[in-house]
Amino acid sequence: MGSPIKRRRLVGASACAVAGALTAAPAIADSAPTIRWRMASSYPKSLDTVFGEATLIADRVRALTDGKFDIRVFAAGEIVPPLQVLDAVQNGTIECGHSAGFFYIGKQPALVFDTGVPFGLTPRQHNAWMQHGGGLELMREVYAAFNVIQFPTGNTGAQMGGWFRKEIQTPDDLKGLRIRAPGFVGRVYAKLGAVPQTIAGGDIFPALEKGTLDAVEWVGPYDDERLGLHKAAKFYYAPGVLELGASLCWIAGLNAWNALPPLYQLALRSACTEAATATIAKYDANNPPALRRLIAAGAKLSYWPAGVMKAMQKATYELLDESAGADPLFRKVYDSWKAFRDEQHLWFAVNDGAAERFVYANRA
Amino acid sequence: MGSPIKRRRLVGASACAVAGALTAAPAIADSAPTIRWRMASSYPKSLDTVFGEATLIADRVRALTDGKFDIRVFAAGEIVPPLQVLDAVQNGTIECGHSAGFFYIGKQPALVFDTGVPFGLTPRQHNAWMQHGGGLELMREVYAAFNVIQFPTGNTGAQMGGWFRKEIQTPDDLKGLRIRAPGFVGRVYAKLGAVPQTIAGGDIFPALEKGTLDAVEWVGPYDDERLGLHKAAKFYYAPGVLELGASLCWIAGLNAWNALPPLYQLALRSACTEAATATIAKYDANNPPALRRLIAAGAKLSYWPAGVMKAMQKATYELLDESAGADPLFRKVYDSWKAFRDEQHLWFAVNDGAAERFVYANRA
Repeated sequence: MGSPIKRRRLVGASACAVAGALTAAPAIADSAPTIRWRMASSYPKSLDTVFGEATLIADRVRALTDGKFDIRVFAAGEIVPPLQVLDAVQNGTIECGHSAGFFYIGKQPALVFDTGVPFGLTPRQHNAWMQHGGGLELMREVYAAFNVIQFPTGNTGAQMGGWFRKEIQTPDDLKGLRIRAPGFVGRVYAKLGAVPQTIAGGDIFPALEKGTLDAVEWVGPYDDERLGLHKAAKFYYAPGVLELGASLCWIAGLNAWNALPPLYQLALRSACTEAATATIAKYDANNPPALRRLIAAGAKLSYWPAGVMKAMQKATYELLDESAGADPLFRKVYDSWKAFRDEQHLWFAVNDGAAERFVYANRA
Repeated sequence: MGSPIKRRRLVGASACAVAGALTAAPAIADSAPTIRWRMASSYPKSLDTVFGEATLIADRVRALTDGKFDIRVFAAGEIVPPLQVLDAVQNGTIECGHSAGFFYIGKQPALVFDTGVPFGLTPRQHNAWMQHGGGLELMREVYAAFNVIQFPTGNTGAQMGGWFRKEIQTPDDLKGLRIRAPGFVGRVYAKLGAVPQTIAGGDIFPALEKGTLDAVEWVGPYDDERLGLHKAAKFYYAPGVLELGASLCWIAGLNAWNALPPLYQLALRSACTEAATATIAKYDANNPPALRRLIAAGAKLSYWPAGVMKAMQKATYELLDESAGADPLFRKVYDSWKAFRDEQHLWFAVNDGAAERFVYANRA
């Protein structure tokens, strides 16, 4: 091991002296390029959770490049319609975007795996699949067909089942129900006889209040409270088996991405990881007090009967099998995801999940 | 909104041209200081999970500074004894370290909250407390008494209950049991009449095989398999109620830290967050197949009876109350942590936890 102590004294002392003198100097070279990009988010400024992570990404990239890489963030609809962010990045209208894959399952059904699948992976399990289960490579392959690269960002955690004007006691109660539920979750409801609708944020509350809608699935207590949904529908359903997690993403056009200096690419990757960690922490910290406020304001916390959840699960599996039969790329991603899910669910049933079950059932 | 489209064309095109020309050039200024630090880890190279994150942190910092900030990583015992990393950083022998707070509860009991408490927070809940529940500020205050700054890094997830030579059927079966269990978990066992021991990694297997030890709590399937513990004790206990998570940390001496250029500090912060995300994903992906292999090799997966878990929980609460009564700083951190825990457990019981309970009980 040589003489580490002697070596340390030299290195430590000189490094500190140099650093102390240069703390205030810019660390990025003058010759490094100044780059300005625009990022469109699918989310409105009113959702400080998910829109907040778009600004966090831009801020962190700016800081890691001494301001040389400057990304301007636009909220939903400011320069691009909220559900056309992928299109805008694909056709080069903007260099990058902040969105969620499952908004685009009409273009490519396999994008549902980038966000989350009913009865699927928790945020932790989703990250494990992305990082060590081949998930990221597969999703990159899916996005590459749009000439886009994607980085996973934050996750909402399990979303609530939503707000219902009437109690749901059996699967039959879902028949004919007009429910705001987007993407794959909407397809599950449709398979059970409900009539899913896609309605933009600002139009949701009036529709529910007037009775044009019977139910609304939005996010969870903290975000839902801002829409005031508890004032228009009383029954607030748990647990979030239809969305155990919803992972957002940051996307860039491949040509623009490939032209970036490596350090700028790394700054973006780091920023997306930090945003991912920050977003779910913010949801987890803010949801419990929001749920208390909602209940105090009259919301009736309700639980799906087991029979309803089983019908939803059956519909989910049938839809996944149908898509896998129709699309080889979906099949490829699904096979990877499903094998990983089965292992994760078995392991969590043994250890983490069982430990949590005990502590939640035996609270202090 | 001005004319975003026109502006985009200009900016996008010029940025790409500039970036394309300069991709290969170093982005960090020549004048930025070259700094060399040494980082001692509490973990051996054989644990690619936790030791791997120490090297990941150093690699990422090097990449984010074009190699200007170079941290050399040393495994447990190479330059500092594994459980004296905090001491070595505190006295300036090394600039930074990679360890876990609960190794040092003999110096300051409140450090247990930096890592994890039995029947406490899951990794997700721990992050939420750190980032949005005041946890990080409180732990920084605790570490500041050592003239050290800390950043949370990876988490193991719930650890298994450990390897036992005999079945545990009642709390009485723990009396007199010689168990390798460090820190606060060891104190819980002591309160139940067991005889906890702290034994370094390499000496654990021989002691368990010879019967000098009756039981060993190490980590989980993937790490445990490497020690071969299943060859010396048959009963492998779940669930991990004594460690729902164990968060590691990166620490630096405050003087050395404060002398760093801001961009180097930010690179370190980003690197620690990335390591945090990578470590738990690696555990979650690797534990299920490792558990399968262990069972195939003869391990008998066993579950704590509810009566044993309740006795452990009671002992934990008594110990926490005793420490809070004896130490105002412990009390201050505990009050914050406990209030946050109660809210998290209630919320997860309603939504995420209930959703997981359904999917684990109704696996595909």
